[in-house]
Amino acid sequence: MAFDITAAINIMGLSAVAVFAISGALDAARQKMDILGFLLIGTVTGLGGGTVRDLLLGKLPVLWIREPVWIIVCLIASAITYFIAPKLVSRTRALIWMDAVGIALFAVVGTEIGLNFGTSPLIAVCMGVMTASFGGIARDLLCGSNLTLMNEELYITTMLAGSVTYLILHELHLPDNYDLIGGFLVAFILRALAIIFKLKLPNIYRQ
Amino acid sequence: MAFDITAAINIMGLSAVAVFAISGALDAARQKMDILGFLLIGTVTGLGGGTVRDLLLGKLPVLWIREPVWIIVCLIASAITYFIAPKLVSRTRALIWMDAVGIALFAVVGTEIGLNFGTSPLIAVCMGVMTASFGGIARDLLCGSNLTLMNEELYITTMLAGSVTYLILHELHLPDNYDLIGGFLVAFILRALAIIFKLKLPNIYRQ
Amino acid sequence: MAFDITAAINIMGLSAVAVFAISGALDAARQKMDILGFLLIGTVTGLGGGTVRDLLLGKLPVLWIREPVWIIVCLIASAITYFIAPKLVSRTRALIWMDAVGIALFAVVGTEIGLNFGTSPLIAVCMGVMTASFGGIARDLLCGSNLTLMNEELYITTMLAGSVTYLILHELHLPDNYDLIGGFLVAFILRALAIIFKLKLPNIYRQ
Repeated sequence: MAFDITAAINIMGLSAVAVFAISGALDAARQKMDILGFLLIGTVTGLGGGTVRDLLLGKLPVLWIREPVWIIVCLIASAITYFIAPKLVSRTRALIWMDAVGIALFAVVGTEIGLNFGTSPLIAVCMGVMTASFGGIARDLLCGSNLTLMNEELYITTMLAGSVTYLILHELHLPDNYDLIGGFLVAFILRALAIIFKLKLPNIYRQ
Repeated sequence: MAFDITAAINIMGLSAVAVFAISGALDAARQKMDILGFLLIGTVTGLGGGTVRDLLLGKLPVLWIREPVWIIVCLIASAITYFIAPKLVSRTRALIWMDAVGIALFAVVGTEIGLNFGTSPLIAVCMGVMTASFGGIARDLLCGSNLTLMNEELYITTMLAGSVTYLILHELHLPDNYDLIGGFLVAFILRALAIIFKLKLPNIYRQ
Repeated sequence: MAFDITAAINIMGLSAVAVFAISGALDAARQKMDILGFLLIGTVTGLGGGTVRDLLLGKLPVLWIREPVWIIVCLIASAITYFIAPKLVSRTRALIWMDAVGIALFAVVGTEIGLNFGTSPLIAVCMGVMTASFGGIARDLLCGSNLTLMNEELYITTMLAGSVTYLILHELHLPDNYDLIGGFLVAFILRALAIIFKLKLPNIYRQ
């Protein structure tokens, strides 16, 4: 099947898959797995969100069966991480930042795919949040880690912000790709600030 | 898409989704999550069982993409729970009872949907048990709780009883909805007795 | 639907499902579950891998809804295990060996189904590994066990070896079923040696 690498949406999608695969491989490093463990966790993390999204929409067979480039990107990113991870000062820190880039990209890409499929804006936002969530959930369950999704810093908030920003910019009919890039920047900057300054939503259960 | 709210099956389905979403939100309360955590866990718990059922049957896109009312019910139920949960004497107790109502409703609704799809009675019962199981499994995995499904009190038994009762009443061609209501009552009463009196199946591994 | 029990692929598939169901039931025994817990865990373990494979390929409804024989095999295998498990010297040991037979069978069967579906060899191998992996992952998550997949002995390696051996033999156009049996033997013997001699991949993270 043709694969138009020039389109911004594909570049963002491939980047999202690659950084998420790296985040998965970094979790494999924390668990001291062997190379095949890296490839498996990296691939499941990179492709998990998009796979669930395709399943729910009924776009079958899922993306990476139709276009193997997606799985090849995961395998390469995971393999490179296997050899580079030992040189990192903090694998946990690297994982958090790769994850931050990944959820910002996936939130926008997932929303765009939902809209293109013809869903309502509410469902498109759900698709964005799910695409951004499920890779990380799979990674954390397989590695026995605490769910990143449930940590206190702005995480689901980040996905929502990116997804909604994309939707609004998309409605404004700006030049090509402004909506994609704008949504990504809002999500990533928000998550970055949350990580650095430990920002949290107000929470009546933790007063 | 048209949505016939008057049909008993839809009322039962919506009720099941709402009480399961509340049970998920109550688990989020035990984990002291913020409002978005409530919305996410509540929605995943409310829609998890029906989503897996639709996937396995191939009814795609899944229900809540076709009819967003289902996701809206989850969001509202979860948000209300966020503000009410702090006032509850025992959130765990409330969770158990919401879950009990939910599995009784889902067991019957899931079986009915399986039958309508044209499956054999055996597979229809499996659909009922799975619809009733998967929301709670997702809730427990996401919250890091012990699986409610694996506790010793009559739980899978409850789902089976409701599902089989529905099947039998359905075969008897009683007036409308007797089968749905009968199946629900048998399941709920059995689970209620199991909770109150700590009823268990005989078990050769715990003698 | 017709079901050709004489075909080697079906015999291998049914055997894989049965031994995986037994491995699930043995995990239920370790958790001291009641008979319904055995049936549930056994069935989910037996059918999990094939279900995920069918979902991703879009072969819906999934196999065991189309042909209930698969679920019946799981129920029978799990029920027999419930009564036999108390007589075993080591349930953990029995579980490991049932699992070993299961992953060797599933790796080959899954690859064959991927190829028959028309996927590329890379994706066919992924299908083999996933079919062999997901039943065990579901079992371990439901039972709260450590993931067998993540243990240090040759496990993913085993699946890969069986899958790739099958692919190579398949390309050689040997007489019927040599490819299936060859792939199975390579995978099973490798896993058996790994269990007995505690073989591991070299791992730069555990030097």
